[in-house]
Amino acid sequence: MLPKDNVKALVFDVFGTVVDWRSSLIRELTAFGNGKGLRYDWARFADEWRGLYQPSMEEVRSGRRAWTILDDLHRESLVALLDRYGIRGLEAHEIDHLTTIWHRLDPWPDAVDGLLRLKRRYIISTLSNGNTGLLVRMAKRAGLPWDLILGGETARAYKPQPECYIRNATLLNLDPSEVMLVAAHNNDLAAAARTGYRTAFVIRRSEHGPGQEIDLEAERAWDVVTDSFIGLADAMGCPRR
Amino acid sequence: MLPKDNVKALVFDVFGTVVDWRSSLIRELTAFGNGKGLRYDWARFADEWRGLYQPSMEEVRSGRRAWTILDDLHRESLVALLDRYGIRGLEAHEIDHLTTIWHRLDPWPDAVDGLLRLKRRYIISTLSNGNTGLLVRMAKRAGLPWDLILGGETARAYKPQPECYIRNATLLNLDPSEVMLVAAHNNDLAAAARTGYRTAFVIRRSEHGPGQEIDLEAERAWDVVTDSFIGLADAMGCPRR
Repeated sequence: MLPKDNVKALVFDVFGTVVDWRSSLIRELTAFGNGKGLRYDWARFADEWRGLYQPSMEEVRSGRRAWTILDDLHRESLVALLDRYGIRGLEAHEIDHLTTIWHRLDPWPDAVDGLLRLKRRYIISTLSNGNTGLLVRMAKRAGLPWDLILGGETARAYKPQPECYIRNATLLNLDPSEVMLVAAHNNDLAAAARTGYRTAFVIRRSEHGPGQEIDLEAERAWDVVTDSFIGLADAMGCPRR
Repeated sequence: MLPKDNVKALVFDVFGTVVDWRSSLIRELTAFGNGKGLRYDWARFADEWRGLYQPSMEEVRSGRRAWTILDDLHRESLVALLDRYGIRGLEAHEIDHLTTIWHRLDPWPDAVDGLLRLKRRYIISTLSNGNTGLLVRMAKRAGLPWDLILGGETARAYKPQPECYIRNATLLNLDPSEVMLVAAHNNDLAAAARTGYRTAFVIRRSEHGPGQEIDLEAERAWDVVTDSFIGLADAMGCPRR
């Protein structure tokens, strides 16, 4: 029996693995800027916003800050960035509209088809640092057929803290060895593997745009290595219709 | 604008409202008994097992006992009941098989069709005292198309404690007034309404079998009163395909 033969649930990193956050952000930021007559390098703005993601969560992981959901961290990072760019005078509903771009990210082209195949054989869930309200709205808009929504908020711990993986396996009534994390990021998989999870690496070569330098190859012999959810469904024995 | 026009999510009581726990329990208990040559009144056994449900949760609600998921409470109640009936010598895997009958309950005939209509317009979720692992397995077997799984375990509080309703609304990024509880039980709706939820009463006249005496009518003017999820979908403005 292969290690992955024991898997009962596949849980997915979302930003970068399931959805193309960068293109979606650039598209919406550009449309917003055009409507307001604001001309900036929105690709750079998107990358700088994402750049504030890990530092904002690190405040929570370190214990310096009480539990705070990602929507609130995204909003604070945005406000700081708007100030840095000298963009002033936006109304609250405009800040809300921009913050919730993260609810409206488009999936990679293979994501929905692969998930539909996997769902017939496995429990499929998010395992994202996005909050529950963000992830469920994204799923409904994008047609992501999750069985349930798990992540940082259901564990009250942000990946890569081990509690995030362990507590969410417990919510599924599963041992970590029965759960497989699917992610486009070697560091997420390494943290999951340390808690006993199985691992599937899905290479997303353009997550960070044309100049991407990280996560272009598997840094370890993960249980599955592929470059799409179709390849993942094949590797996990889920028949095409 | 009617109160229900503001509703963004419908959350459902499950045991009795979505699934017919009693018939499902009797069917599986009878099959198990026949296989083992055990002859008992399995309808009575089912009712007595369900009768231990509220007292077992009350230990947790009162604070006398640390947080314990419903699968564990169901198992303890079952073991006590088997002992009371003088049924001895079952193996652990048999106890597990019986405990997880609660994962294999059949939906009422209107449930899936109504949920599919409601899902196109609203976030739809469980709001059950069942644990997450129980509810997701039930959903996959029965084809219940939840957007996510919420309940006692995600709030770490059992209904009708107000924290269960309030914390799960927070997980949805919603004010309680934007969430509607759907339930076949007046007391559940009353507790939800006290926290600001909207309410839909779905009468299930045979939840407790032919002699049912409770919850046969609405005890208050709930926002919606109906007797099926088809009627609920109609009341909530969800078109037939």
